[in-house]
Amino acid sequence: MKLDLDPDRLFPVDPATREVARALYTEVAALPILSPHGHVDPAILLGNVPFPDPAELLIRYDHYVTRLMHAAGVRLCDLGIPDRVSGTPVAPPREVWRTFCAHWHLYAGTASGYWLQHEFSELFGIDQHPDAQNADALFDTIQAALATDSFRPRALFDQFGIEVLATTDDPMDDLAVHRALADDPTFSGRVLPTFRPDAYLNPAAAGFAGNVDRLADWNGTEPSSYQGYIDALAGRRRYFADHGAVSADHGVLQPLAVDLSTSEAASLFEGARAGTLSAAESRAFGGHMLLEMARMSVADGLVMTVHPGVFRNHNTDTFTRFGADTGHDIPVTTTYVDPLRPLLEKYGNLPDFHLVLFAVDETAYSREIAPLAGFYPSVYIGAPWWFLDAPDAVLRFRASVTETAGFYRGSGFIDDTRAFLSIPARHEMARRLDAAFLARLVREGRTDIRSAERIIVDLVDTIPRKVFKL
Amino acid sequence: MKLDLDPDRLFPVDPATREVARALYTEVAALPILSPHGHVDPAILLGNVPFPDPAELLIRYDHYVTRLMHAAGVRLCDLGIPDRVSGTPVAPPREVWRTFCAHWHLYAGTASGYWLQHEFSELFGIDQHPDAQNADALFDTIQAALATDSFRPRALFDQFGIEVLATTDDPMDDLAVHRALADDPTFSGRVLPTFRPDAYLNPAAAGFAGNVDRLADWNGTEPSSYQGYIDALAGRRRYFADHGAVSADHGVLQPLAVDLSTSEAASLFEGARAGTLSAAESRAFGGHMLLEMARMSVADGLVMTVHPGVFRNHNTDTFTRFGADTGHDIPVTTTYVDPLRPLLEKYGNLPDFHLVLFAVDETAYSREIAPLAGFYPSVYIGAPWWFLDAPDAVLRFRASVTETAGFYRGSGFIDDTRAFLSIPARHEMARRLDAAFLARLVREGRTDIRSAERIIVDLVDTIPRKVFKL
Amino acid sequence: MKLDLDPDRLFPVDPATREVARALYTEVAALPILSPHGHVDPAILLGNVPFPDPAELLIRYDHYVTRLMHAAGVRLCDLGIPDRVSGTPVAPPREVWRTFCAHWHLYAGTASGYWLQHEFSELFGIDQHPDAQNADALFDTIQAALATDSFRPRALFDQFGIEVLATTDDPMDDLAVHRALADDPTFSGRVLPTFRPDAYLNPAAAGFAGNVDRLADWNGTEPSSYQGYIDALAGRRRYFADHGAVSADHGVLQPLAVDLSTSEAASLFEGARAGTLSAAESRAFGGHMLLEMARMSVADGLVMTVHPGVFRNHNTDTFTRFGADTGHDIPVTTTYVDPLRPLLEKYGNLPDFHLVLFAVDETAYSREIAPLAGFYPSVYIGAPWWFLDAPDAVLRFRASVTETAGFYRGSGFIDDTRAFLSIPARHEMARRLDAAFLARLVREGRTDIRSAERIIVDLVDTIPRKVFKL
Repeated sequence: MKLDLDPDRLFPVDPATREVARALYTEVAALPILSPHGHVDPAILLGNVPFPDPAELLIRYDHYVTRLMHAAGVRLCDLGIPDRVSGTPVAPPREVWRTFCAHWHLYAGTASGYWLQHEFSELFGIDQHPDAQNADALFDTIQAALATDSFRPRALFDQFGIEVLATTDDPMDDLAVHRALADDPTFSGRVLPTFRPDAYLNPAAAGFAGNVDRLADWNGTEPSSYQGYIDALAGRRRYFADHGAVSADHGVLQPLAVDLSTSEAASLFEGARAGTLSAAESRAFGGHMLLEMARMSVADGLVMTVHPGVFRNHNTDTFTRFGADTGHDIPVTTTYVDPLRPLLEKYGNLPDFHLVLFAVDETAYSREIAPLAGFYPSVYIGAPWWFLDAPDAVLRFRASVTETAGFYRGSGFIDDTRAFLSIPARHEMARRLDAAFLARLVREGRTDIRSAERIIVDLVDTIPRKVFKL
Repeated sequence: MKLDLDPDRLFPVDPATREVARALYTEVAALPILSPHGHVDPAILLGNVPFPDPAELLIRYDHYVTRLMHAAGVRLCDLGIPDRVSGTPVAPPREVWRTFCAHWHLYAGTASGYWLQHEFSELFGIDQHPDAQNADALFDTIQAALATDSFRPRALFDQFGIEVLATTDDPMDDLAVHRALADDPTFSGRVLPTFRPDAYLNPAAAGFAGNVDRLADWNGTEPSSYQGYIDALAGRRRYFADHGAVSADHGVLQPLAVDLSTSEAASLFEGARAGTLSAAESRAFGGHMLLEMARMSVADGLVMTVHPGVFRNHNTDTFTRFGADTGHDIPVTTTYVDPLRPLLEKYGNLPDFHLVLFAVDETAYSREIAPLAGFYPSVYIGAPWWFLDAPDAVLRFRASVTETAGFYRGSGFIDDTRAFLSIPARHEMARRLDAAFLARLVREGRTDIRSAERIIVDLVDTIPRKVFKL
Repeated sequence: MKLDLDPDRLFPVDPATREVARALYTEVAALPILSPHGHVDPAILLGNVPFPDPAELLIRYDHYVTRLMHAAGVRLCDLGIPDRVSGTPVAPPREVWRTFCAHWHLYAGTASGYWLQHEFSELFGIDQHPDAQNADALFDTIQAALATDSFRPRALFDQFGIEVLATTDDPMDDLAVHRALADDPTFSGRVLPTFRPDAYLNPAAAGFAGNVDRLADWNGTEPSSYQGYIDALAGRRRYFADHGAVSADHGVLQPLAVDLSTSEAASLFEGARAGTLSAAESRAFGGHMLLEMARMSVADGLVMTVHPGVFRNHNTDTFTRFGADTGHDIPVTTTYVDPLRPLLEKYGNLPDFHLVLFAVDETAYSREIAPLAGFYPSVYIGAPWWFLDAPDAVLRFRASVTETAGFYRGSGFIDDTRAFLSIPARHEMARRLDAAFLARLVREGRTDIRSAERIIVDLVDTIPRKVFKL
């Protein structure tokens, strides 16, 4: 079955509106990609070795892709993910690829399906939908392309027009890869680390006590010292900032800031290290540390991004066998207005403090996040995230937040991906949808074309530079 | 005022998109109706006696219809529903019909209005909107039609193209009607019972203790025996399966699974029979029994459908006077991810276990149900239910779930109706909306027409057969 | 940059649908404005003095406008709002105006931007978008217009076609302004007071004890007398009704009705006066008083409107410095079905009792409010309020409620504004959106053009007259 990309894809279907969208998109189609938050491994750019094979590159690490096949009854080991418990051998890459192609119809209408068809067509020149019959041929086509110099990571980085790419890193990472990239005269891209301290702040996280020890060790203080712990975190943040980091990212189940006294916090810290906190105490300590992170952001200027509302590792069996980030993360109801108030009371009105609030519970957009960002100078509306980073959801997002907060309180598009090859597809999608949304407003007499032309450039370029202090 | 059905009804307004929708709809317009969950009384098919009159057929039992007139100030007894308390005589059918016709404008834009105008036009050839003036004439027209052989239930069953019709039944029902229908060589339709045990599982349900006694009596065990109770339920499920049932249905206020030990459960069972449980204990026992039902579904293969989130009988006065299912049921906030986790931990990854999650809180679609169904092989997304079974709500549903879960994790359309005559209107509506949704995706370059042609047939035919094991 | 209003603004983009919308809008464009709930100061109509300047008229008191500039880092004192703490001098009007014009791009796509561009163009003949360069010229243009007789409040009242304008008033207001307006033979408009007793019912409100004293004083009873308090409230309601009031309005954090015995209530009343209630007791007393207000509405016929779900004064710093209604109010999750049940159990089925439920949590529309209004004769669906009173939100609202409740269970449009000049823009927006929504339904074959013509007149005229007993 023929696969070809519609040049007017994602534009509104009404012809006159489509024409406006096309014109608006033209204004931004060639602008550089700014990716201030994501999960690409920077080592691929340092090493610049060819990607191994289509399955490893496009399937195995992309939990958007693996989860739908798991739902269809495919075992994760048959998608290349090792089963740590049973030790069942993983399928070889060509088998993984065949399985994927046989299930390609499952992705119709999904965000992943949209990005993948973009990648197949634009990057590999594939003009057929994958299926059981053509799986081997497609594997060979992609494999052959990957062996060429133009498919090496750095060549793609250039071809994609990436200006800034932020990674997500452990607070104790030495950032040697980032430093080596920055020092490499043959590589001109900006690859920035991001401070992601969840496992150092949340007493319920696996490895919390060991992480605290590592912080203390680096800081030369006693692991039992709460002040040492705080100082070490501040120190590691400075280390990240010195290596180019512009933001610190926080993944929490619920957005929650708790204002504890130092002695209360120190007492909970002791329990956290000992693993003796109740669930409520653990939440309180985590909430306190979120507030501490805000305080440090005010001091060191790192943008604070919060990604809440996901029940991680919902299924114990698959988590135990296949690990995190393999598809079993499910959103939950999320609220911001009450639980984040202590943070906003303290720092909400400081314009140099930037707090970007993401959501997977889209009800929060019109009810909470847009109103907060429409008042507090510090608050920015995070781009649609994860399950919501898809065409219809993005348009719902724009319609939900714009009437309250306008176009200038958003974060700009965030791809948040570990799928390097999908980066241009994602940014192109976002730009096309911005054009589509603005075109409708122009045609409905709500804004005029000159304003829309300014806005779309600001959305793609000016705003993310400002919000992320690039 | 002239009533005529637009042949392009429910298709997108953009001409080119409409043309695609029309073509897609043509692919499925004539496919047989599969109705794996609903509330039609099977006795009407066994008896095959003419329907009595328009009011009895179209008004009196349809709480979608009666509630809007109640809101407009009409007394339910004036719609033919007996008042058990006051004993006020019910209005005669022709009066009920006149009242309805005088209030016809209230239904503009509603799902019921849409179905009724379909029925008036397609079944009865009525070409005027009902009003106070033409009420008697319309009554006579419908009455005359009902007296003809082609309006007998079995003739309509054939004319509607129904292949499978599931009913909803009490666990102690002897299913004699179903057996008689299955044994009738002159009737070729499949009419399947559905096991609906709410009043046998929820200690707060009216008649719980008596129901437990009936189970024990049938099972030949002591009413006080928890094991006997469990065995009896399993036995009645087998009885249903032996009579063709493919699913067990669960109406609960909140989806909740609780994993109790047998001794804890037995102890709560004793309190449930005695009526001494606290509200929390009652919820815990109900949650435990939902988990038990899942266990039994794994064993006997009955599809588990869950219809949560409705505050039944919200108004005590009308409930006392007019009984259940007369319009006073109101949705509430519903969550699935946390409360159903014990069930999904135990059985979520079993592909032969089918769990269909319905919702009346539409915020759960994108946030919880689609992500759950996009990972767990057992979970299917229930079609828009009750208040959400209407054109705009259905399109919102599709837009909310498809980007996360694609087209292959849904239940297929479920009419869930007690209004026999509305069945073709409802299925036609669903098929037109699937065509409308897919046509937009085609025109937006998100899927191609060949894929859409396959998908729409799968939505209408392949998927419900697979999900409900038909 | 040129500013001109599209004559087809807000109509659907599809040409054939747009034509239907245009025709429907024509039916209602010239109908009088009914404004049964809002915040205009009646003294401006009594005094009929010219409005002072563009900043005072359009910026300083409009917290929809000031909040977005605050979010952009502008100090509220630079928008003309006095800082009570620091005493920083406020910017003079021309400076405020310059600041606003320089930030005009922030309002693109917002409801405020839409209304303001309407006002600039239609009222002041301005044909350029505001910016830093033309700020002074625009200021002068508006200032000059305001000095003319045709821009005096009464002339605008006539020009706007306002038939009824309700204000919002303190229960102890003597309503002298309303009486003087009613007695003025040179003024023919109806300006009605509205009873808004929040600060007399909620023990947590600032000034509660003093308000109780004032009630007792007026009533000639002891402040400690619960019965005197109740009688005084009933008396003040009668006083309002005698001065033309048609409704009592209730702003509450959560909709909550609590059925206490008189002795329980009297005991809490004592604690409320003394300021000794716990948060839970305070909520209970407030909930009890909401139920009392419903009881009084049944007795005196005042329509009961409830505006819940807003966390007022979320930011202590700006509240302390700049006071209420300056932008720091943020919506929260709101539910109605459980917490309002005691009220609906008692009075829900009384058709002469009118209860209008508003929402800023739009998830409640399809889930709770439409189903409640689709059954209870007393319940009406409040028009989209505050953050939701904007084009896309209004269309989402219509799509959310209509399929369940039809067109006849809504309140009619409510402008709820303190921005007098925005009243025609807001009502025009509502009428255009009603036309847009109905046009789509006509073109989708869901209703016909004759029905739509009737419905839009009912929406704009018949329904608000009936719901608000005008």
